[in-house]
Amino acid sequence: MTNQQQNDFTKWYIETIQKADLMDYTPVRGCIAFKPDGFEIWEHIQAEMDRRFKETGHRNAYFPMLIPESFFQKEKDHIEGFSPELPWVTEAAGEKLEERLALRPTSETMIGHLYSDWIKSYRDLPVLINQWANVFRWEKKTLPFIRTSEFLWQEGHTAHIDEEEARKETMQMLNIYKEVVEELLAIPVYDGQKTPSERFAGAVDTYSIEAMMKDGKAVQAGTSHYLGTKFAEAFDIKYLNKENKHQHVHTTSWGTSTRLIGSVIMVHGDEQGLVLPPRVAPTQVVLIPVGPWKKNPAIMEKLDEVYADLKAKGIRVRLDDSDQSPGYKFNEWELKGVPVRVELGPRDLENNQALMKARDESDKVSVDIPNLVEAIEAELKTMQSRLLEKARAFREKHSHTHVDSLEQLSKHITDSTDNEEIPGWILAGWCGDDACEENVKAETKFTTRNIPFNPPATKSTCINCGKESKHTVWFGRAY
Amino acid sequence: MTNQQQNDFTKWYIETIQKADLMDYTPVRGCIAFKPDGFEIWEHIQAEMDRRFKETGHRNAYFPMLIPESFFQKEKDHIEGFSPELPWVTEAAGEKLEERLALRPTSETMIGHLYSDWIKSYRDLPVLINQWANVFRWEKKTLPFIRTSEFLWQEGHTAHIDEEEARKETMQMLNIYKEVVEELLAIPVYDGQKTPSERFAGAVDTYSIEAMMKDGKAVQAGTSHYLGTKFAEAFDIKYLNKENKHQHVHTTSWGTSTRLIGSVIMVHGDEQGLVLPPRVAPTQVVLIPVGPWKKNPAIMEKLDEVYADLKAKGIRVRLDDSDQSPGYKFNEWELKGVPVRVELGPRDLENNQALMKARDESDKVSVDIPNLVEAIEAELKTMQSRLLEKARAFREKHSHTHVDSLEQLSKHITDSTDNEEIPGWILAGWCGDDACEENVKAETKFTTRNIPFNPPATKSTCINCGKESKHTVWFGRAY
Repeated sequence: MTNQQQNDFTKWYIETIQKADLMDYTPVRGCIAFKPDGFEIWEHIQAEMDRRFKETGHRNAYFPMLIPESFFQKEKDHIEGFSPELPWVTEAAGEKLEERLALRPTSETMIGHLYSDWIKSYRDLPVLINQWANVFRWEKKTLPFIRTSEFLWQEGHTAHIDEEEARKETMQMLNIYKEVVEELLAIPVYDGQKTPSERFAGAVDTYSIEAMMKDGKAVQAGTSHYLGTKFAEAFDIKYLNKENKHQHVHTTSWGTSTRLIGSVIMVHGDEQGLVLPPRVAPTQVVLIPVGPWKKNPAIMEKLDEVYADLKAKGIRVRLDDSDQSPGYKFNEWELKGVPVRVELGPRDLENNQALMKARDESDKVSVDIPNLVEAIEAELKTMQSRLLEKARAFREKHSHTHVDSLEQLSKHITDSTDNEEIPGWILAGWCGDDACEENVKAETKFTTRNIPFNPPATKSTCINCGKESKHTVWFGRAY
Repeated sequence: MTNQQQNDFTKWYIETIQKADLMDYTPVRGCIAFKPDGFEIWEHIQAEMDRRFKETGHRNAYFPMLIPESFFQKEKDHIEGFSPELPWVTEAAGEKLEERLALRPTSETMIGHLYSDWIKSYRDLPVLINQWANVFRWEKKTLPFIRTSEFLWQEGHTAHIDEEEARKETMQMLNIYKEVVEELLAIPVYDGQKTPSERFAGAVDTYSIEAMMKDGKAVQAGTSHYLGTKFAEAFDIKYLNKENKHQHVHTTSWGTSTRLIGSVIMVHGDEQGLVLPPRVAPTQVVLIPVGPWKKNPAIMEKLDEVYADLKAKGIRVRLDDSDQSPGYKFNEWELKGVPVRVELGPRDLENNQALMKARDESDKVSVDIPNLVEAIEAELKTMQSRLLEKARAFREKHSHTHVDSLEQLSKHITDSTDNEEIPGWILAGWCGDDACEENVKAETKFTTRNIPFNPPATKSTCINCGKESKHTVWFGRAY
């Protein structure tokens, strides 16, 4: 973490995304405008997710955004969880509506209602549908990308013949999330199960991938829910099985959202601004002429050539031939997190060389011009995996397994602050009692992130009560 | 037009899209669910439009869906045009809002507000942004895809240094719409200018592409607006020009929506169901084993091979090896509008041949199996252009240029009805007076579609008042 980040991470974050032109605030509370450079990161995430959803047999559909109030009443956990955050349409076209319509916070209810009509027989199963949509949660504290009143997401909604198949789907989608977030966004995640108190409102089981930001706080980067027959019962979604008997379907839902954009910034960004993994960077390479390049037309000719070659390979390249000084340009493109910068000046050209700099490394390297395109291509690949490794190393460093009591946790937090270090996450035991989880939160602000599938250690006692532990759990502060 | 279509086109349309599983009604007034086969048509349209937008330098962004009431007050034509159709959020998270928030019917106001902040200097121009989004217009009469309370669309919003550049953009986007609708959807359109009474609320000039459905009614398939400095003045969007003077920008907006899905059905569908142009068909080819195929494993082996070859070429193919009879399957896939069907039975295999049928042609053709994949590929291309030609021929037949007075128009309509023919559209003169346009509508329900850029004839007198004509205009009934 850099100085500026350490002083006030949120301030650093907001200034960085504004300077890098990713978003703007709007007059509507908690709603942001996604500017092109911010939105394009989302487009790359969408493309990769969508490809994988389709490869696994899912198809996209679109459901109404407005949900009748009565729908929410049908599943009691669901309404309890979401009703505090709903915006309501009460009038339309000059008339008061008979029933209020909520702006969807998620679509289980509307989709449950429709699936009850679409699903009649085992032949209709599984139903594997995804939706890309805007959703609304009117939350008190908002932060651009990470928590906004309106956000963009995808929500998968599937229906299955039995629990086994539905649970398999739940895991399959969690795995896809893990792969995309690690491979595309270079963000390492811990996958695991949420504790009951952190479950999705109406789920039997919720699974998540959890990512550590540079301030040590957690972002829940994706969730996948096994809903059992709860929504099937609430919305009467039944099928006739092969024995001619009516059975409730087992449903799942799973989602990732534009908070992934915020996570990329918070995981990779530094004092100079954004650091974008090449696969999601709107501009992957910037070419900058330096020195008295205007007097040497050969420089721009060469850069035009490189530009064309990179373009032909599908690389997102920009050539900055504006009138600003090289230093100004370097700052500007670093701020925007462009992965690779190439400089070419008269002396470089004489030596048949160019300078190449990766955004996350401090040294420039000389590259023979004939090898330049190839070297850039290779660097984009290398940087993609290097960022993941750096983020993994950072996370390992701040994932602590030595904390086994509330006292130790309090001390760990105090020590970290004293050492100007972040407290990170701790892996601790938990007896399974909601009250223990609640007390840890009340005392330390650390909440359970998830019960990891592959914990680096197992814990025998509960961090709060010291009794026998049922689960080994990641605890941390969360966004 | 087929018998069923002639008896009640709307009934045919609704039954067809429901049987073909494109949509479902929902309990929210005028809001439909887009089922996967319906939504996929939209995905193909999106992909093609988006590619062309990006090729012409546009980038995507996303703006808040909720628009403060005060924003609408700033441009008086705009609020007059849209306020009767707005749904309003008045409460959120348990509290009454201080200011009502409209669900966007279109985003000129929100975007105008933000552009006034984003644009400072001529260096910031042009701004070329597009948004894919859901929008709301609470209309009284709805029809799936064609007119729904919530629909999906794209809306481009650009800002330019002067009128010339903005008008060029307006035309460029109209041309892209024309090309995509003709080439991808095989729907011929007339491009031209809207009359003042049919302009977008707040536009200086509106241009449209107009398509004729099989019942002779018109669908406005896309619009592009030159907004002049009207929104720039309302939202104070100014830039410092090279002479250091503040100038208002000139803006444009342009949109196409999911009504294009409905148009494809209404232009190409027939008595048997959908007829989908290959480029937007979710399934382009269906392979069906016939005769005692289960006893002849060689049949499925061959079809598997063909399936794999087609798949490898990126063709969207299905192999129907369900237990239903061939006749049932033929009906089912015809209903869904699959462009090409291939049948293979024991005798065909013996002769090393398969039968191929294009959805819009009545005859099956025999194809040597070694040439099958190639023949299918060729047929998909041929069918794509054949559908456009058929639709063009239909439109020419029902585009009338012989009607020059209101009396003649009334007679034309009566004669058409008597002959069980559709009245189609008429090309007539117009003096430019709103009252004349209004009277034609009141007397005949024919409205001005647009003033075509390349009319097939020019007209010297106004169809209503007989005075000198200023414009030659397409008139027709519209959705």
